[in-house]
Amino acid sequence: MSRYVISLGGNALGKNASEQKELLKDVAHAIFPLIEANHDIVIVHGNGPQVGMINLAFSESESTPLMPFAECGAMSQGYIGFHIQNAIYNVMEEKNFHRPISTVVSQVLVDVNDSAFQHPTKPIGSFYSKEQADELAASQGYSMVEDSGRGYRRVVASPKPIDVIEKKSILALLKDKQIVIAAGGGGIPVIQKGHRLIGVDAVIDKDHASAKMAEIIDADELIILTAVDYVFLDFNTVNQKELRETTLSDLETLMKEGHFKKGSMLPKIEACMAFVKATKKPAVIASLEHAALAFKQQSGTIINY
Amino acid sequence: MSRYVISLGGNALGKNASEQKELLKDVAHAIFPLIEANHDIVIVHGNGPQVGMINLAFSESESTPLMPFAECGAMSQGYIGFHIQNAIYNVMEEKNFHRPISTVVSQVLVDVNDSAFQHPTKPIGSFYSKEQADELAASQGYSMVEDSGRGYRRVVASPKPIDVIEKKSILALLKDKQIVIAAGGGGIPVIQKGHRLIGVDAVIDKDHASAKMAEIIDADELIILTAVDYVFLDFNTVNQKELRETTLSDLETLMKEGHFKKGSMLPKIEACMAFVKATKKPAVIASLEHAALAFKQQSGTIINY
Repeated sequence: MSRYVISLGGNALGKNASEQKELLKDVAHAIFPLIEANHDIVIVHGNGPQVGMINLAFSESESTPLMPFAECGAMSQGYIGFHIQNAIYNVMEEKNFHRPISTVVSQVLVDVNDSAFQHPTKPIGSFYSKEQADELAASQGYSMVEDSGRGYRRVVASPKPIDVIEKKSILALLKDKQIVIAAGGGGIPVIQKGHRLIGVDAVIDKDHASAKMAEIIDADELIILTAVDYVFLDFNTVNQKELRETTLSDLETLMKEGHFKKGSMLPKIEACMAFVKATKKPAVIASLEHAALAFKQQSGTIINY
Repeated sequence: MSRYVISLGGNALGKNASEQKELLKDVAHAIFPLIEANHDIVIVHGNGPQVGMINLAFSESESTPLMPFAECGAMSQGYIGFHIQNAIYNVMEEKNFHRPISTVVSQVLVDVNDSAFQHPTKPIGSFYSKEQADELAASQGYSMVEDSGRGYRRVVASPKPIDVIEKKSILALLKDKQIVIAAGGGGIPVIQKGHRLIGVDAVIDKDHASAKMAEIIDADELIILTAVDYVFLDFNTVNQKELRETTLSDLETLMKEGHFKKGSMLPKIEACMAFVKATKKPAVIASLEHAALAFKQQSGTIINY
């Protein structure tokens, strides 16, 4: 019996409520073998498209107030958490094997001095014209950048997660053998200011949040489920080769050789490395499709200390 | 040391994120004495204005998909839950007294055969013209009614809560002396269909959900915090008189005499009566402003078996 953190991509959750519900049926079936084997499980999900959608609804609607990004993230945790706990509950009912499952709304602490706040890089929300972008920069203090010729977008910082504020709630549920969904979208980013935690407009990478979660709850393994079966070397070239098992030092060499793309496989690998380095325990990057095999270490890239 | 369910009105939470954060500071200070006295506490909050706002943002926005009402409710649980747990965390930090607190995203079971589904009465979301209302009724199957001369609105059912699906998570957190926010907005309404729980477009009265929660977790007292200090007899007349302590049978007489208004004090009284009847334990209706006094039974209307 082991303790797992499973990181699930927001891109795998579709574009609206009914797609999300449908796609999560497969996710629930994929994770069920781990549940049935009585493992401890924390699920961390992404929220990129979903928080973008929520943010967009509030920006476009004329009668509703502007909604800060931290609050949009909190909404996405409710929205996605509901669907995940519902989907897994339903699969357990179908299989007549029951364990309690719930979503813990989670704040994740970031450092106000994180250099990411000086260089916001994460595009969020709608595209704007140059004029609209200038107006938003002036009126709201947003950082706006030109995005691949498609217009201007707001960018926010992507600081590193330091702590999960609700970790004691997550640990109490795990202790009771419950399944927990937490730190959705990487968590609601908060900074410490004197005695107060304050929500900030930022995006915490969900794989880094998963790695921090795995470290905090003393997980035996971090599993990042994504769209590809393995980490690949020379990805998308004739020399493309899957990486089945590797180590921290090998990965450092491969990173220097430029095998992994920024904004794609690189953050996942960095997140895994952070967990493996901190705990000497393994991390796995595998496809959602072959999750069941990955849980048995029969698919996916295994990263050892 | 006792176990409390505190029901908090959504109308007390303001119209936008910054108002909500500000108002919750007072709520957090009001509840702190109970926290410090090590009582078990579950907070159930309303979400009327907030879920309306989320629903409206998605209706008005042109680029986002239509968002079902159950999912809007889930979003409101993340949004309000985040602010409540943050506000209480911050007050505990300030007072240097710590207990873990978190929000559990909660589904609440309702009966598909509840007669409320035959007679939807709860208006939600925007006002529409007669033409728009007819179009929505035809295309989405919505029930639309004329609302006080201000136009047409969608109405949904307000079925009775039967069970809180995540009760085992809430109980595990309470067992660990944690503070729990749950069943926000009355809970995400779900019906049972074969082995599956399915979200439905409905609104569960948050006071009835609080009463059901209090019954399920074996609370010693249900406390409904609202805008007035007491339940009043002959409310808003020259004979107005506060009700300080009463019983189930006295209340039944008073109800028949028509003292309590539908859609206002009546559902709160009915919810209290349901709890008191089921458990023989007391319920209190008091103002948020004098919550600290109400917790000491020095303000508010006490309802005994």
